[in-house]
Order: sequence, then structure tokens, then C-alpha cells
Amino acid sequence: MNIPGNVVGRFISFEGIDGCGKSTLLQHLSRWLNAVGVSHITTREPGGTRLGESIRELLLDPTYHGMSQEAEVLLYSASRAQLVQEVIGPALRDGIWVLADRFSDATLAYQGYGRGLDLDMLLSLQVWATQGLMPHHTILLDCSLETAAGRRKLKTQNPDRIEGEEHAFHERVRQGYLELARRYPERFLALDAEGSLEEVLTELETLFWLPLRSGLFSRVFFDHQSTE
Amino acid sequence: MNIPGNVVGRFISFEGIDGCGKSTLLQHLSRWLNAVGVSHITTREPGGTRLGESIRELLLDPTYHGMSQEAEVLLYSASRAQLVQEVIGPALRDGIWVLADRFSDATLAYQGYGRGLDLDMLLSLQVWATQGLMPHHTILLDCSLETAAGRRKLKTQNPDRIEGEEHAFHERVRQGYLELARRYPERFLALDAEGSLEEVLTELETLFWLPLRSGLFSRVFFDHQSTE
Repeated sequence: MNIPGNVVGRFISFEGIDGCGKSTLLQHLSRWLNAVGVSHITTREPGGTRLGESIRELLLDPTYHGMSQEAEVLLYSASRAQLVQEVIGPALRDGIWVLADRFSDATLAYQGYGRGLDLDMLLSLQVWATQGLMPHHTILLDCSLETAAGRRKLKTQNPDRIEGEEHAFHERVRQGYLELARRYPERFLALDAEGSLEEVLTELETLFWLPLRSGLFSRVFFDHQSTE
Repeated sequence: MNIPGNVVGRFISFEGIDGCGKSTLLQHLSRWLNAVGVSHITTREPGGTRLGESIRELLLDPTYHGMSQEAEVLLYSASRAQLVQEVIGPALRDGIWVLADRFSDATLAYQGYGRGLDLDMLLSLQVWATQGLMPHHTILLDCSLETAAGRRKLKTQNPDRIEGEEHAFHERVRQGYLELARRYPERFLALDAEGSLEEVLTELETLFWLPLRSGLFSRVFFDHQSTE
């Protein structure tokens, strides 16, 4: 199977530290796509398949505090491999768009920049685990740790194993995401997620959704022209 | 952490297709080591840690028949990474020997030769997941699929997900193990496991245990000489 060659749908991932608002923004994009009739699914990581949800339980269980760094990467990657094989790949080949709450960049940011594991090895591993599939667009929501912590507090009182990491770790993750956005500018769109939800939504609409929508309509127009 | 540099104990793995008798032989070597007072532990894969045993349940559950090949490799590797970090590495650094029922070669044989996944990628992945740790000695028990099937039938009526694979798969695994033994002759000892348990035990004793034991005693003698 070589997914990239046969992909018809668009694959858009949302990234950022916990509490940056990516899940909320993803839901807004989903509503906009519904409004113009674009079939799509949403996924989350780790999880999204029966196997992936079992792996998710292992990864987020705070009692596994002695988990080796390599085992952590391998479990995230296993969940992602299954998600590509079972959900994302088939959807994209059928022309269904995929909105992903995290994908490979999360491993580079958290385990590479955050924990200091070798980035080249992590990248090779991701390419292999996902059968070479990368998102067409990655929307990075960047905000300070304080802003993210305030948003998280509204949602949960019991931090999971990853949320319980120290401040410096999450700061390295944040800076790692920004570095990835600089390294892959053709794929990444970094949004300032420091402001209110309304402000971030306006950014997403202006910088991503409106250009995407006009692309959609011009493609429909073009397809219509070429078949007459 | 770089385990190989600090290893004091010896690390011996047992490999072969299911039913080859490796677990039985491992127990015999364990008794011989006890008889001469060599401290050691035994491990099995996947499993051997709390995390690893949870991963083992996922891997051997026959209802996960749609598991992606990459996810399978990643789960085995995650279990192994945790075992190295939590059990094998600390033991070897403390001078405790480790007898392992399967290690990295199993991934090369089953997922590489058996399923046709890229061997170079699998090898890089194993080196990374195990922090570069390889067994000092690997004892391969080679027998025909028929012999192995006969031995398995004595043990279990319900095949797990891997045991339920077709005949050609297990034959590729067997041939893969033999190829690994040819490729790494300094590490591998391939024993003919076609005969009775007594015959295989005699082979293990003559070709592995007696030379190892004389090495042990000459080292003890040397240490004694050098400290006087």
C-alpha cells in the first residue's frame, strides 16, 4: 500500500501544546466544511481505532511513571500506524477529508524537542509507521504555557501522565513546534493562539479557511469547465 | 544511558519458531547456572514488565486480526524497550546474567523475513529501541514445522494470533532465523532441534554449556591470580 500516490481527499492536522485550543478550532473547521458539503472525518491521537484506544489507555495512565522514553514513542507510533491503515488511508483514498487532532509532528515536538530523543531517528520512524503519509496542511496553534494552563484548568482537574510533566518540558515542546513550522513552511500555518477564541477563529478563517474555500470553488469551477 | 558500555553480566537469548523447545532449553541452562552459582534472571517476550504484559495482551489477542504490520512491530518493540530499561539493563549492570526467551532477532525473523517488512529499517528500529543492546550469545533451535507443531499440540488447543498464521509464514520465519545465524556467526549458535529433548540437551551441553563453564572457571582462576 502506498497511500500518498492514491490520495484524493485533503489531510489537515492540528498541533500545539495541551490547552492551545486545537480541538475547538478543529471542530469549527469541521462545521465550515459541512456548510459547503465537503465530506470529512475527524481523528484524535492516540486512539481512533479499537487497538489505538487500548494503547491510549496505556499511554495516559499516570501510574506508568517508569515508562521508557523509547517505549512511549513506539506506543504513540503504533497507535498512529493503526490509524493510518484502518481510518485515515481508506478515507483519503475515497476522497474523504481528514481533520486530525495531532499527527506525526506531535512525536517530533514532544519526544524529540521535549525529551531530547534523536530527531532524525524519530522522523524516519514516523515516515515508516505512517507509510509515508504526511498532512497537506498542519495548523499550529501557538500560545504561552500560562494561557494553555488556564484553558486546561477549565476542562480538567486531574492531569494525565503527559500533562503532569514539568514546565520546562512543555516550553521545549512549544519551541519545538515553532521550529518545525519554520522548517516546513510550505505545510505549516502557525497561528497566534494567545488571544480569545474569537480572535483565533478570525485568524483561522482569514488565513486558512477563506483561501481554502476559494481554492475549492475554483477547482469545482475548473472541473465543471473541463468536462463540458 | 548506554547499557553496552557498562554491562558486566552475560546476556543469552533463545530463538526459534513456536514449539522448537527454546523455553525448555532455557530452563535447563538456568538450572546449570544455578548449580555453579551464577546469578541470573529469565525474561520472556512480549512481556516481562507491567507495561509489557499489557502490550502482550494486545499482541496475542486473536480478535485484533486487522492489526497493521507496522503497529505490530512497534508494539513488540515497545515491550522490548521497556524490558531493556526496567529489567535487562539494570540486571546486566549489576553483573546478573539474563536468559531471554526471544529478543530483537524475533522481530527480524517474524516481521522481516516472515511478513516481508524492510530488514534495514527493522534493524535500525531494534538498535534504537534497545539502546544498542544485543545478546552476547543467541541460541537458535531449528526444527521442521511439523516437529514444532507436534510439540505445540501437547501444550495448547487454542492458537494465539501469531500461532494461527499460515504454514508458509512460519517456514519463512524458520528460514529467516537460519539466515540470521549465517549472517552473525560470532553471536549465533544454531542447534538441530529435530530430535528428542535428550538429544537437543546433549547438543546444548556439549556445544554451549561446557565451553561456557570452562570459560567461567578460567576467569575465576584468573581473577584470583591477579588479586594476589
